[in-house]
Amino acid sequence: MAAKLAHDSYGKSKVRLTKVTRLPDRHELKELSVEVSLSGDFSATYLSGDNSKVVATDSMKNTVYVLAKKHPIDSIEAFADELVWHFVKTYPQVHHAHVGIEQRAWHRIDTSGKAHPHAFVAGSNELRTCTVGNNAGELVHHAGIENLVVLKTTDSSFTGYVRDEYTTLPETTDRIFATSVKASWMYRDVLKPGDWNQRFAEVRQVLLDVFADHKSLSVQQTLYAMGEAVLAACDYVDHMKITMPNQHRVPFNFAPFGLKFENDIFVPTDEPFGLISGTITRE
Amino acid sequence: MAAKLAHDSYGKSKVRLTKVTRLPDRHELKELSVEVSLSGDFSATYLSGDNSKVVATDSMKNTVYVLAKKHPIDSIEAFADELVWHFVKTYPQVHHAHVGIEQRAWHRIDTSGKAHPHAFVAGSNELRTCTVGNNAGELVHHAGIENLVVLKTTDSSFTGYVRDEYTTLPETTDRIFATSVKASWMYRDVLKPGDWNQRFAEVRQVLLDVFADHKSLSVQQTLYAMGEAVLAACDYVDHMKITMPNQHRVPFNFAPFGLKFENDIFVPTDEPFGLISGTITRE
Amino acid sequence: MAAKLAHDSYGKSKVRLTKVTRLPDRHELKELSVEVSLSGDFSATYLSGDNSKVVATDSMKNTVYVLAKKHPIDSIEAFADELVWHFVKTYPQVHHAHVGIEQRAWHRIDTSGKAHPHAFVAGSNELRTCTVGNNAGELVHHAGIENLVVLKTTDSSFTGYVRDEYTTLPETTDRIFATSVKASWMYRDVLKPGDWNQRFAEVRQVLLDVFADHKSLSVQQTLYAMGEAVLAACDYVDHMKITMPNQHRVPFNFAPFGLKFENDIFVPTDEPFGLISGTITRE
Amino acid sequence: MAAKLAHDSYGKSKVRLTKVTRLPDRHELKELSVEVSLSGDFSATYLSGDNSKVVATDSMKNTVYVLAKKHPIDSIEAFADELVWHFVKTYPQVHHAHVGIEQRAWHRIDTSGKAHPHAFVAGSNELRTCTVGNNAGELVHHAGIENLVVLKTTDSSFTGYVRDEYTTLPETTDRIFATSVKASWMYRDVLKPGDWNQRFAEVRQVLLDVFADHKSLSVQQTLYAMGEAVLAACDYVDHMKITMPNQHRVPFNFAPFGLKFENDIFVPTDEPFGLISGTITRE
Repeated sequence: MAAKLAHDSYGKSKVRLTKVTRLPDRHELKELSVEVSLSGDFSATYLSGDNSKVVATDSMKNTVYVLAKKHPIDSIEAFADELVWHFVKTYPQVHHAHVGIEQRAWHRIDTSGKAHPHAFVAGSNELRTCTVGNNAGELVHHAGIENLVVLKTTDSSFTGYVRDEYTTLPETTDRIFATSVKASWMYRDVLKPGDWNQRFAEVRQVLLDVFADHKSLSVQQTLYAMGEAVLAACDYVDHMKITMPNQHRVPFNFAPFGLKFENDIFVPTDEPFGLISGTITRE
Repeated sequence: MAAKLAHDSYGKSKVRLTKVTRLPDRHELKELSVEVSLSGDFSATYLSGDNSKVVATDSMKNTVYVLAKKHPIDSIEAFADELVWHFVKTYPQVHHAHVGIEQRAWHRIDTSGKAHPHAFVAGSNELRTCTVGNNAGELVHHAGIENLVVLKTTDSSFTGYVRDEYTTLPETTDRIFATSVKASWMYRDVLKPGDWNQRFAEVRQVLLDVFADHKSLSVQQTLYAMGEAVLAACDYVDHMKITMPNQHRVPFNFAPFGLKFENDIFVPTDEPFGLISGTITRE
Repeated sequence: MAAKLAHDSYGKSKVRLTKVTRLPDRHELKELSVEVSLSGDFSATYLSGDNSKVVATDSMKNTVYVLAKKHPIDSIEAFADELVWHFVKTYPQVHHAHVGIEQRAWHRIDTSGKAHPHAFVAGSNELRTCTVGNNAGELVHHAGIENLVVLKTTDSSFTGYVRDEYTTLPETTDRIFATSVKASWMYRDVLKPGDWNQRFAEVRQVLLDVFADHKSLSVQQTLYAMGEAVLAACDYVDHMKITMPNQHRVPFNFAPFGLKFENDIFVPTDEPFGLISGTITRE
Repeated sequence: MAAKLAHDSYGKSKVRLTKVTRLPDRHELKELSVEVSLSGDFSATYLSGDNSKVVATDSMKNTVYVLAKKHPIDSIEAFADELVWHFVKTYPQVHHAHVGIEQRAWHRIDTSGKAHPHAFVAGSNELRTCTVGNNAGELVHHAGIENLVVLKTTDSSFTGYVRDEYTTLPETTDRIFATSVKASWMYRDVLKPGDWNQRFAEVRQVLLDVFADHKSLSVQQTLYAMGEAVLAACDYVDHMKITMPNQHRVPFNFAPFGLKFENDIFVPTDEPFGLISGTITRE
């Protein structure tokens, strides 16, 4: 019996950075968490501890900060591009570089009704994400969104499902629908970058629009409608994966108190939770 | 040697509830986490397991939901009042009831540039809080704010502090100042409730205004200025406690790379962190 | 342009359960978190909101509790088997059922030097895990371990790696090596279940033995050595994936204080962290 | 109207450190998180930004590491003593220094049935804590324990409590009792330090013994019995505060499935939770 190394990768995670750009009339603030992962000709360190080809993960971290200084970071996708090319072109032993970036939102504080030039308040836990990797000399771009927590108080029903000995859930034609949307999509054009920021904003708005306006017969149906609408509205999107965990709002049982539940008081619960996912592609 | 029970209290924490109010043109959404704590004539259960005076914490939970149905929950302070009086007046063995409420913000989703009538997106981790307790037949109201995460990219210096053998921090006349403000304040008027929501909005805005505009010589100075400004602007506030943990942004050391730190690239760190607190009162 | 549903699955996550088995001389305690995910003939609910084939995730949850009552839960793998077969055999629209289980350890409290028959104290965050799924009428079993946090204070070096303009990490022949091992392995025999509990204990011990005794030249080398040793010692393991995030212990810089770092005082940091992974198979 | 600074303190939190002591036959490992808080003559920085008396929190952090090198850290209490005296004696403007330390447990890995000399596996989330402060030239010592998660499967009942219109909880003579014990106790003797480690172990064992063996009529009763037993067994303890949040295990309702709950299958829930506390003193 002998063992072999079938697959391997290594890198640095949670490289957090703040970039401040000092413009004449205002400061711009970007906060990112960067992940770098490399694979290629690295088996020697696994098999014999020969580190001669190993780029230390500490050096990857340094690289992220040095390149962040030089790059405008106008979009996380553009910065990820820079990082991927850097690792692939600098080190021949790197066959594939994979860079993931998460960005949190900061909003300008309003004082006297005006956006402040250099003071900010943190946004929600929503993350704008991207992952960029090289494939046969070209870059593949995925963008995404995580922790987009949304809730609608009506226009959501769930009826007609299997009823058997394990079923206790009552059918309902009007329930709260709450979820934390996680979506990622691949861009079609590799060579024509477009405006990454505008694209992200467009996709996000379509997701919100459909979530808000859809007459939902099931979480699955709304999920598909959201992805379908993105593909219809955004010709630069190749395909999209959406995951929607149900953040249940359980009707409070007022029966023991001589009162009636009137779609008014709910118990939010974190677990267990339904988890619905789907990948929507073009035909 | 004999032991005695010097102090005791018990209650229910993290009673989470969602209230939907269905108005003709839109739905209102409130999400709260409620904590109830009681003290009084409860030593028998501690000393002998005699539970005859014990209001089960499960019953407290039920009470929160039942009263939430009947109360408009126009403000968390008004709902907390209702709960405190309920426990004090219903159960003679309850001498003191203490109710704490946390409220997270939900914002309406904008679709086609308009606020949606029944679809919402979650706000930040910022919490509006209150605690209400009874004292000699009157209620004492504290309101508060937690996780108000703010950052300014300039107008913050830190110089002139003690330099000795344990000091390595360089003085700086221009640093990032980031913190997660936690503030709580007691209201002066017990009998004249005023508009709790407007008061909260006013206090919050003063805190943000001063944070943004203050030329900070130390976190301590800005903290005091924030509290002082609230007392000056809001005559209904009796005193205020503020806690400001430093959320450090550490300048990245570019020296090994032949580059210069230009107040541009920082490393955000979670720990260790400075923790500054102060209580500001009226003279 | 038209969209299509390329892939979908749905299920229930974080179904937590406690099972107490009351034996004559002692109680047994098991605490699990179960995840069920189904795929098959479910496109109708995505495409048109036709839920007639949908098994509600709430019903999945009920099923877990009902089957937990009837099953001894002698091992999480055996219980997962039961659940997978249940969903596949009960609902023709289910083509694939996937069940994941996490188990936390509880230890008996020692009183007067003896293991207590019915009082327990919680173990660490280490999780025993399994995932079971059906494939062409047979079950495929993966077992795993997560959050196995280990640290060795010596026998770890890291030298000879790439030194270039991005490198600042000093080489070291004696460092702390700390990580949170995550491993999962596939069992070779589908039809001969063996003793799942004994197998898990054997694999875990090999992982710990090699981590403790290996003279490490790199995290990668130790990772591979751990996997190789498992394959050598455990003929029932087909292959194994191991992920080892570096939990860095950074030497404290005593130079400014006229003192010398003597491999004695370290700063534990959570981020950024190195992340090493590898899959070890049989030749 | 004028404001004044009624109270203030500042310090550094989450100063994490690892100390390795290299003995001839084995290595010792200690991991601590230290918090330092100072108060005294510091109003100038609050009122005017005059930092001339301010000991930077970064310097406090350095001090912790430098003193950790010199101190054996044989117990966290002894190390906290050293830190408190350091700040009080070095800086006249410091009137009160308060040091809190948390220690996590690491256990030696067993290989071939023997405790390994330098390889460790992490313990549970249980923390050993202490807080030490100066008061009129003497030190006051509190020790404590947090996250001591315990569960008993029987010998716990809850009956005879108030039944009214808000009560739905059924009485039970046999339930699961699970909690995360948080306890802190003040030591009586200021000048006679004793063996802090042995004392901690003794108090912890009494808490576990009573939890395990008590026939509980209420959480309150068990809490008091635990504190009373500590005071009886440990003459060096002055008083003790215990907080016990209920970690509920809710009986699963098998009625809809034609089955009977037999004290066998429970649903663990995190919230809402009962929260019971008491302070037990000597008469």
